[in-house]
Order: sequence, then C-alpha cells, then structure tokens
Amino acid sequence: MSSIQACNYPALIRFTEVGLRDGLQMESVFVPTETKLELVKALIRAGVRYLEISSFVSPRAVPQLRDAEALISAIPRDSGVHLAALAPNRRGVQRAVDARVDSVVLFVSASESHNGKNLNCEIARSLDNIGEAAQAAREASMPMQGAIAVAFGCPFEGEIDPDALLRIAERYLEIGCEGITLGDTTGMATPLIVQQTLMRLRQAFGPVPVTAHFHNTRGMALANMLEALRMGVTSFESSLGGIGGCPFAPGATGNVSTEDAVHMAHHLGIETGIDLDLLIQAALQLEAVLGRPLPGQVMRAGDRLRRYAIEAQVAAVG
Amino acid sequence: MSSIQACNYPALIRFTEVGLRDGLQMESVFVPTETKLELVKALIRAGVRYLEISSFVSPRAVPQLRDAEALISAIPRDSGVHLAALAPNRRGVQRAVDARVDSVVLFVSASESHNGKNLNCEIARSLDNIGEAAQAAREASMPMQGAIAVAFGCPFEGEIDPDALLRIAERYLEIGCEGITLGDTTGMATPLIVQQTLMRLRQAFGPVPVTAHFHNTRGMALANMLEALRMGVTSFESSLGGIGGCPFAPGATGNVSTEDAVHMAHHLGIETGIDLDLLIQAALQLEAVLGRPLPGQVMRAGDRLRRYAIEAQVAAVG
Repeated sequence: MSSIQACNYPALIRFTEVGLRDGLQMESVFVPTETKLELVKALIRAGVRYLEISSFVSPRAVPQLRDAEALISAIPRDSGVHLAALAPNRRGVQRAVDARVDSVVLFVSASESHNGKNLNCEIARSLDNIGEAAQAAREASMPMQGAIAVAFGCPFEGEIDPDALLRIAERYLEIGCEGITLGDTTGMATPLIVQQTLMRLRQAFGPVPVTAHFHNTRGMALANMLEALRMGVTSFESSLGGIGGCPFAPGATGNVSTEDAVHMAHHLGIETGIDLDLLIQAALQLEAVLGRPLPGQVMRAGDRLRRYAIEAQVAAVG
Repeated sequence: MSSIQACNYPALIRFTEVGLRDGLQMESVFVPTETKLELVKALIRAGVRYLEISSFVSPRAVPQLRDAEALISAIPRDSGVHLAALAPNRRGVQRAVDARVDSVVLFVSASESHNGKNLNCEIARSLDNIGEAAQAAREASMPMQGAIAVAFGCPFEGEIDPDALLRIAERYLEIGCEGITLGDTTGMATPLIVQQTLMRLRQAFGPVPVTAHFHNTRGMALANMLEALRMGVTSFESSLGGIGGCPFAPGATGNVSTEDAVHMAHHLGIETGIDLDLLIQAALQLEAVLGRPLPGQVMRAGDRLRRYAIEAQVAAVG
C-alpha cells in the first residue's frame, strides 16, 4: 500500500472550448453566425472563459468558419471571455489582430506527411512561415500559443519522432509562444505516450505550459487526460458534445466531450469554474442545432450523483 | 520530474467477456442459441479464454438468457475456455453445477435500495442466501467469485458506504470466494473512488484478487481501468462492442467495450492473450447480429497504429 499514494491532481484547470472551431469545421453544413453566437453565450453562461472561436484560414478551404470576423465582433467581451483563433501564417495573424481576438494559435504537424496534407509544405517551411506570423503577432503584442498537430501519432506515418516534436516546440518557444498545445488530431495518444511526451518536453525545456488536446477516437480521451493531470497539466482543450469526428474513421468520435472532461475533473476534486448543468444544457442546445445525437456521454447520463427514483427501470441483474 | 515515475503496470491481465450475459440481457430481442454460439466461437478464435456465459436466474425475469444450459452444452470445452455463470441462490448454483460451468458468480448490491430492486430483499437476507448457495458450490467443488453490484455508486442512494462494501467482501471471503468483483453497474466510478475502494479492500483483507467491471456510461471506463491497472488489478470484465447499456440513461453506453479495453492494455505494454484484429471481427459480427451501431470505438477506428494512405481525406486544420 505504501508505494501507492493518492495522486496530487492540480487544484484548478482551464478548459478551452474548441467545438466552434475543431467541431464545426467537420460539419457538412454551415451553422449561421447567429446560431453560433447563441452557443457561445450558452457556454459563457456555463462559466466557460476560454474559447478557440474560429480559424483565420481560407474561407474556401474551411467554409464552415468563413464568418470568423462577424462572429468575433458579435461576442460580448465584458464577460472576461478569452477568444483565441487559429492563424496559419502572417496574413491569418493580421486578420486575427484586426478582429481583436485575445490570442492566436499557430500550428504545424509533427509528421511531414500530415503537415504536407494539412499545410501543403514541409515542416521546415511551415516553421519559417510561423516565424513570419510570430513577428506580426509580436508587433501587435498579440499573445501566441504553438500547437503541434498529430503530436501523439500520425495516421500516415505511425509513431512520431520525439526529436521532430522537440524541434517544433523549441521553435515555438524561440519565437515567443506562451505555451505548447499537443494535439491528438486523430486519437492516437495513449497514457504511456502522453507521459513520455510530457517528460521529454520538461527535460528539454523545463516547466513549459502545455495544453493537452485529446480526441476520443479510440475511447481513451479521459484516460489520457487522467495521465496528463497526474503529470501536472492544467490546461485542456475539449469540444461541446464531443463534436468533431475523425476524418479517418467514419462513425468514430473525435474531440473529447467538454462535459465528460469537466465531469471527471470535478469528481477528481479539481475546480474548473464551469457549471456542469448549464454546460449540459449548452450541449443539448448544440445537439438540437446539428440535429443528430452527439457522442457526449454525460449530456445523456447526467452527473454521476444524479439520483433516480427507485421505481425506475433496472436490469434484473447488476 | 523525479517524483513521477513510469507506472509499473501489470505484465499480463485477464479479460472476462461479459457481453453474452451483461450485454445480451439488456437487448429487447432473444438472440438464438446458435447465433450466440457463433459469437462465442469468434471470441475463442480471438484468444478470449474467460467468458461469463449466462445467468442462472429465472427465465421469466431474464428471458434473453433462458437458453443458458443449451448454450453451455454446445460450447467446445477442449479450447481451454473457462465458462462462468451468475447464480443468485442455491437453485442457481445447482443449475450451474449440472450445466458443468467452471465457476459461479454470486452477487449482491452494495446499497439496500439497489439490492431490493435487483434481488427483492435486504442485503442481510441476500448474504444468507449466498451462504446457502456457497455451501452448494463447495459441495460440488465449484469455484466461486463474489460480485458486488453498484460498488462505486448507487443510482438511488448516491455514494456507497465503504463499510457496507467491506462487510459484503468479508462475507464473500468467509464463504470461500476466490476473488471479489467490483461492478460499476451504472457507470458511477471515478479514478479517485476506484483508488480509494481498492486501498480499503487491501487494508482490510490484504492482496485479495479483485476483478474490475466498469461501465462507460459517463465516458470514464478506460480512465477507471487505467487507475485500477496502476493499483495492480489484473482481472477485468468487459463487453464485446460495448453492448449492455445503462437502464437509467437512455442512449448512454454501458459496459466498457472489450476491444477498446484490450487496445489500451496492449498499448500500455500489457499482454492479454487476445488478438485485437480477430476481436474486432467478432465485434463487427455482433453488430451485424444486433443490427445497429455498437458503442465500441476501436471496432470502427482500428488500432491506433493503423496506417492510412496519404490520399485519405483529412481536415483542413489539425
């Protein structure tokens, strides 16, 4: 017994809601700006304070997010909400600055083949582009986050070369990023790889702030989050209702559900500042908007301490 | 860094497949014995060696399992397969002995209200009944496992009284059970409660063999399994395709999917003796039988190291 202690989880963690960006970009339909705004307001009411609100990429490449500027300008900023947006290059950063977001997220993939597919160039070239984008951000005093896609595995190449990942992280820190986001883009992370990757980052760069972005494609999102918590990570990205999907696995779920992640955190004794009941209401609102059952579990089952009347149906055998 | 070590997970764990019992008992239709037999054979081909095959309860109460004897007698026993069956009382044990299963699973709930609903009597009375059942099992040299339903939370009462759980476990050990199964019947377990419950059991009884039975009702099944592994648990129950459902949460999933659990174990470096590809084939076979999408994730997404052609569709932004 003595060798196993209760874990020291962080007392407080931050969730950044990525459903509006990583979720909606996967949808076949365009969700009207006004509807997105209602969802954002529901999230703010639930206590969500960090939103990855959109992406300043080409409207032709991602038409679902073509209303980035209009949406951002419509969001009331007096609530203390922090709006982040993806920006792939200098032009994206300039749009983000003009739209007055609170921070930009730069991104590159940890594997050459995913980067080529996603950004149409080699990683080295992406890092040059990011250098230019960072310069524009610094000139505008715009905080930057450095995101690494397929950080825990690539659907084309398999395992990620740890050195390749460290080189990208190093570049992000050199150009002034405040933290590194590790994206499990296609749900290939495992608790073991999460642990190893976080240890390598710390060995190389000390206590750099890491944001973990897990997908539930293979059911492990909350197990990976548990491992990240155990390793002291205090910043997570998640998606309302678990929307997002995985482009490589039809029918499989994508982003970890915000409600499921918040629910687990609360029951580990971790504060999030989020009201689970109001968050579930927001997820149900999103489900109504999209018109299909979403993969989130807690939005259906409710908090684990939800009580049922004893007359409720029960299996004949537990 | 020094305070966080790589976890010492067990080198080898056992999965007991409960889909035929805990899964099918939730189905509205009766799956023909011949079809069940084909599923069992597919599981055996995949390397599954422990099956909770049925339940010797009243055929009126659980008509889906009314063919227990016929199914068991049809299963080839030369493959080293171990068949367990639930038995609520002396009569159930006698049927199990006559059917020549390899072990019986006795069960009681950790809360009075769930026990009343499930077994129609108080826990004290259930423990008396179990004592009689155990006597019959001992006379037939039939190994026994003691299962505790709603071990991590009760949908009627909320948190479980740790002393109530320990009293049941103590009784099971007194009457000769080889191990204790902790059933998360409605998916209320959390990693913290899993840890606390396992620590209490060990403090009270030493290294008693524990089998963990998790449901994924709130998305935490694999996180709970990870915590149990970290605590040294080497025996798990799971359900092919994740069938089973939760009677209290329409649309929410139930038992943890065997494929998802085996997949995580393998990628933690843990042996299971199970071939994941053949297991996924068995899950797809079950999906065809039931005629609806099952909640398992890995049966759709495949192993995390599955490679995709680079021409495959990809999101515009990771």
